[in-house]
Amino acid sequence: MTKDGGKQDKKAAQYGVTPQSADFNDWYNEVVKKADLADNSPVAGAMVVRPYGSALWENIVRWLDDRFKATGHESLVFPTLIPMGFIMKEADHVEGFAPELFTVNKIGTEELAEPYVMRPTSETIIGHMWSGWLNSYRDLPFLHYQWGSVFRAELRTKAFLRTSEFFWHEGHTAHADEPEARAEVRQMLDIYHEFCRDILALPVVRGEKTASERFAGAVATYSIEGMMRDGKALQSGTSHYLGQNFSRAFDVKFQTREQKEEFAHTTSWAISSRIIGAIIMTHGDDFGLIMPPRIAPIQVVVIPVGRKDNFDQMVEEGEKLAAELRAQGLRVKVDKRDGVTNGFKYNNWELKGVPVRIELGPRDLESGVVVVKNRNGEEKETLARAEAVSGMTARLDEIHDWLYGRATEYLLNHTLTVDTYEAFQEAIEGGNWVRAYHCGDAACEKSIKDDTKATTRNVPLDDAEFFHEAGEGVCVKCGRPSAYGKRVIFGRQY
Amino acid sequence: MTKDGGKQDKKAAQYGVTPQSADFNDWYNEVVKKADLADNSPVAGAMVVRPYGSALWENIVRWLDDRFKATGHESLVFPTLIPMGFIMKEADHVEGFAPELFTVNKIGTEELAEPYVMRPTSETIIGHMWSGWLNSYRDLPFLHYQWGSVFRAELRTKAFLRTSEFFWHEGHTAHADEPEARAEVRQMLDIYHEFCRDILALPVVRGEKTASERFAGAVATYSIEGMMRDGKALQSGTSHYLGQNFSRAFDVKFQTREQKEEFAHTTSWAISSRIIGAIIMTHGDDFGLIMPPRIAPIQVVVIPVGRKDNFDQMVEEGEKLAAELRAQGLRVKVDKRDGVTNGFKYNNWELKGVPVRIELGPRDLESGVVVVKNRNGEEKETLARAEAVSGMTARLDEIHDWLYGRATEYLLNHTLTVDTYEAFQEAIEGGNWVRAYHCGDAACEKSIKDDTKATTRNVPLDDAEFFHEAGEGVCVKCGRPSAYGKRVIFGRQY
Repeated sequence: MTKDGGKQDKKAAQYGVTPQSADFNDWYNEVVKKADLADNSPVAGAMVVRPYGSALWENIVRWLDDRFKATGHESLVFPTLIPMGFIMKEADHVEGFAPELFTVNKIGTEELAEPYVMRPTSETIIGHMWSGWLNSYRDLPFLHYQWGSVFRAELRTKAFLRTSEFFWHEGHTAHADEPEARAEVRQMLDIYHEFCRDILALPVVRGEKTASERFAGAVATYSIEGMMRDGKALQSGTSHYLGQNFSRAFDVKFQTREQKEEFAHTTSWAISSRIIGAIIMTHGDDFGLIMPPRIAPIQVVVIPVGRKDNFDQMVEEGEKLAAELRAQGLRVKVDKRDGVTNGFKYNNWELKGVPVRIELGPRDLESGVVVVKNRNGEEKETLARAEAVSGMTARLDEIHDWLYGRATEYLLNHTLTVDTYEAFQEAIEGGNWVRAYHCGDAACEKSIKDDTKATTRNVPLDDAEFFHEAGEGVCVKCGRPSAYGKRVIFGRQY
Repeated sequence: MTKDGGKQDKKAAQYGVTPQSADFNDWYNEVVKKADLADNSPVAGAMVVRPYGSALWENIVRWLDDRFKATGHESLVFPTLIPMGFIMKEADHVEGFAPELFTVNKIGTEELAEPYVMRPTSETIIGHMWSGWLNSYRDLPFLHYQWGSVFRAELRTKAFLRTSEFFWHEGHTAHADEPEARAEVRQMLDIYHEFCRDILALPVVRGEKTASERFAGAVATYSIEGMMRDGKALQSGTSHYLGQNFSRAFDVKFQTREQKEEFAHTTSWAISSRIIGAIIMTHGDDFGLIMPPRIAPIQVVVIPVGRKDNFDQMVEEGEKLAAELRAQGLRVKVDKRDGVTNGFKYNNWELKGVPVRIELGPRDLESGVVVVKNRNGEEKETLARAEAVSGMTARLDEIHDWLYGRATEYLLNHTLTVDTYEAFQEAIEGGNWVRAYHCGDAACEKSIKDDTKATTRNVPLDDAEFFHEAGEGVCVKCGRPSAYGKRVIFGRQY
C-alpha cells in the first residue's frame, strides 16, 4: 500500500496498469500500449506509432527543426539504401555496424551482385555526395540534416527504446578546420540540452563519452544522459566530432584559401525517437504518463459532465471553453465520448498524461466556475471560469517546473559519490548512478561492466549543470591515478 | 532565334540551360541539377534531394499536413518493411506490385526464411493492424495517414518523376459503409485539387480512371491530371475507393449497430514527390524554374548592388529591407555572395525561379527607391521602397494568377476534341491531349496505347473545371457506342 492510504493502488488496479514499483518494465510496456502511444507490429523489431505517439513525435520534430533552421542548417533527403561497400570504407564504422545491418539483395526481379543495406546511419553516403559537391573553402561549411528512419537489428524489442527501425534526425556538417567543427559539435549538444530542459522538463548531464563508448568512427562523442525512474540511464542525444576520418574515407577535400588541398573536418549529431522513452520513464507515475506541458499533444482536456438530457449542451459549452483556450495557442481536446463514465474518462486522460483536466458540469456553468485538476496534483480546484482560462499558460509553466524539479531531485538523490569498489557495486545494485574516479583504461572499464553491468555514461563538461567539479583521485576499480580531471558517471543503461 | 530578338537564346546560352524547345528532357534534367533541387545518387534509381528541393517539399508537406489534420485525420507511423506474405494476400495487389519490390533477405547475421519487402505502399500492413484495432462501429471511421518513403523498382530514373525511392503521404481510412467511404475519397481528391489550383498554380482535371488504369486492388480510382509544357500528362494525385477488398484480405471487420459482423469499406489516397516534377514542367521556361509564389522556398530575393567600398553597407540595407518583408510573413533571401557578378546572381535566381527579385544600389538608396523584377516579366520597375514592401503580397498573388492563367491556356490549347482515329493520332503525335468517345473496352484501350503510346488519363467528373460536358458518341477507335456518358481524356504520360 502506498502512503496515500491505498488510493493510488486502487486507481491503478481499476485502470489496470501495473505500478512502477511492482515491475517497472511491465509498467512501461502497459503504459505505451494503453495510452495509445505505440503497438507491436508484425515486422520483427519494429513498432507502429499510433496517433497519440505520432503527435508527440511531430511536436518534437517541429521544435528541433525550427531550431536547426534558425542556426543556419539546411535539410536534405538522402536515399534509405546505402551500397554495402560504403559501410566497409571506414574501419571502425564497419566494425560497429556490420552485425546490425538489414541487407537488400533483390530489386524487382534482379538479384544484386553487390547488395545494399538499409541505412544504420548516413555518414558514408553523405560523405560520398559531399565529395562531389565540395571544391573550395568558399563552399564550406556544409550544415546539413535529414529526418527519417534508420535500421539496426535488435533482438529484444522495446517500444521507442529499442526498435530495429527508429526515427531521428541526423545532422551532418563539414568545416574547414577543427575549431569550427568542434564549436558546431558543442552548439548542437547545447541545443539538445536546452530542448530537454526547457521543453521536455528533463534534467540531463552534458558530457564527453569515454573512448570505449564513442560512436563508431568518431574522434570525440558527447552525450546528454538522463536518469529514468528505475535509476537507469538513457543516452538521450549525441553529438560527434568525426575529425577527418570520414572525409579521408570518402575523399571530402577542398582547396584552402592558401590554395592547398585539405580534408574537411566533419561532425554528426542526433536525437531519436528514444527520447519518447525518456519522457515516459522520467515523468510517469503509477497512474500512467505525465506529458511535459510544452510538448504535450493535448495540454488541456475538457470533460463535459452531464446527464442524458443536458450532455449535448455541456459538450457545446465545453467547446466554447476550448475555443477560448485555443485562442491562446493551447492544444485542447474536448472529450465528447458518450457511453463511458466520467470516472473512465478521468482515468483515461490521467493514463495519457494530459497536464490539465477541466471538468464542466451544469451547476458549474450556472455558477460561472470550472473544476480544474493538474495531472501532477492530488486536489481539484474550483475556479472562476475566466480565471481558469487566463491562468492556463502559467499553470502549464508551473507543471513544467514541477516536473523538472522532481526529476532533478530524483537524479541528485540517486547519484552517489563513491571512492571504494564495494560502495560502487552496492550503489549500482541499488538502482543508482555512481560518480567515481577512473583510470581511463578501456580494459578496466570493461571489467567494471562485467562485474556490475554499469558502463561509463559520460565525463561531465565543465559547465554541465550537475557533477562537474574538478578533482583528482585513484581509480575506483584498479587504484591507478584518475584520468579526466574529474569523476566519471557510471550507470546501467537502456 | 526567339521572337524577343535572341535575348532569350543569349541568356540561356550564357547560363547554359538547354532551351525547352530544343530538348525538353535535357532542359528538365539540367534545371533540376543546376537549380540545386536534386542530384544523382550512388544508389540505383534513387536521388538525393538538395536543400532547395527539400525546402520546397517541406512547404508542400506542411500545407497538406495542416489540411489533413483540419479534416480530422491523424498521422501514424507504420514500419518501412512489410512481410512478403502480406503483399500476396490481395490478388490484384500482388500482380501490380510484385515486379517492383525491394527484398530484404537478411537482418543482422540472420538469413530470413520469409523475406520482407520495403513497402511499395502500405495498404496490407495497415489492414493487418486495423484488424486488431477494430471491434465496433463506434471505433470508426479510422482516418489515418503517414508521411514517408516508398520503394518501387525503376529502370530509367528521372529526378522526382521516376525514382525507386520516392516520398509521399499515404492516407488510409476505414468506414462503416460505402457512401461514407466514397465521400472521403471525393473529399481528398478535392483537397488535392484545391492545393494544386490555389497553392501550386497548377490547373488539373479531376476525374475517374478507367478500369485498366486503376490502382492495384481498387474498386474505383480518381486522379488529378496536369499537362506539362511538352503536352504530356502527369498524374498528380490519386484517391482510391478500395471497397471491401483489403478488409476481406486482412479481416478488417466490425460489429454494426445492429450487432452484425461487417467488413469495413476502405480508401487510400496520395500525392508524392512527383508533384515537384509537375511544378517544374508546368511553370518552367527557357531561363529555368518559375516557383509558384505560395509554395516557393524563397519568395523574394534581395540583391545588394554595390562596389567594393560600399558593398557591406548595401548588404546591411538589403537585410533591413528583407526584415520588413519577413515581418509580413514572406520568405526572403539576401544574396550576400561576394566575388560573383550581379549578372551571375540575376541569372542564378532566375534559374531557381524565385518569383520576385529586388535590386538595391547606392543611388536607389539615396532616392528611396528599389528596382523590382518579376520572374515572369521582362521589365524591371523602379518603385518607391515603401510601395515595393507594402505591395509585395499582392504582387506575389498576381504572379500566382498569371502562372495559373498561362498554364490553363496551355492546357486548353493543347487538348483537342476529335472524332476520328486519324485526327486522334495526329493530335497525340503533335503533343496534345485528346478528348474522344471511347467504348470502355480494355482491349480497345490497349490497342490505342500500342498505336500511339497514349493512355486514358481520366473521365472528368461532372463538376471538374474542364472537359466535363455530357455527351454520347461512338468509340474513336472501334466505332462501338461510347461508355462513360462523356468524352474521355487520352494523352501520353510521365
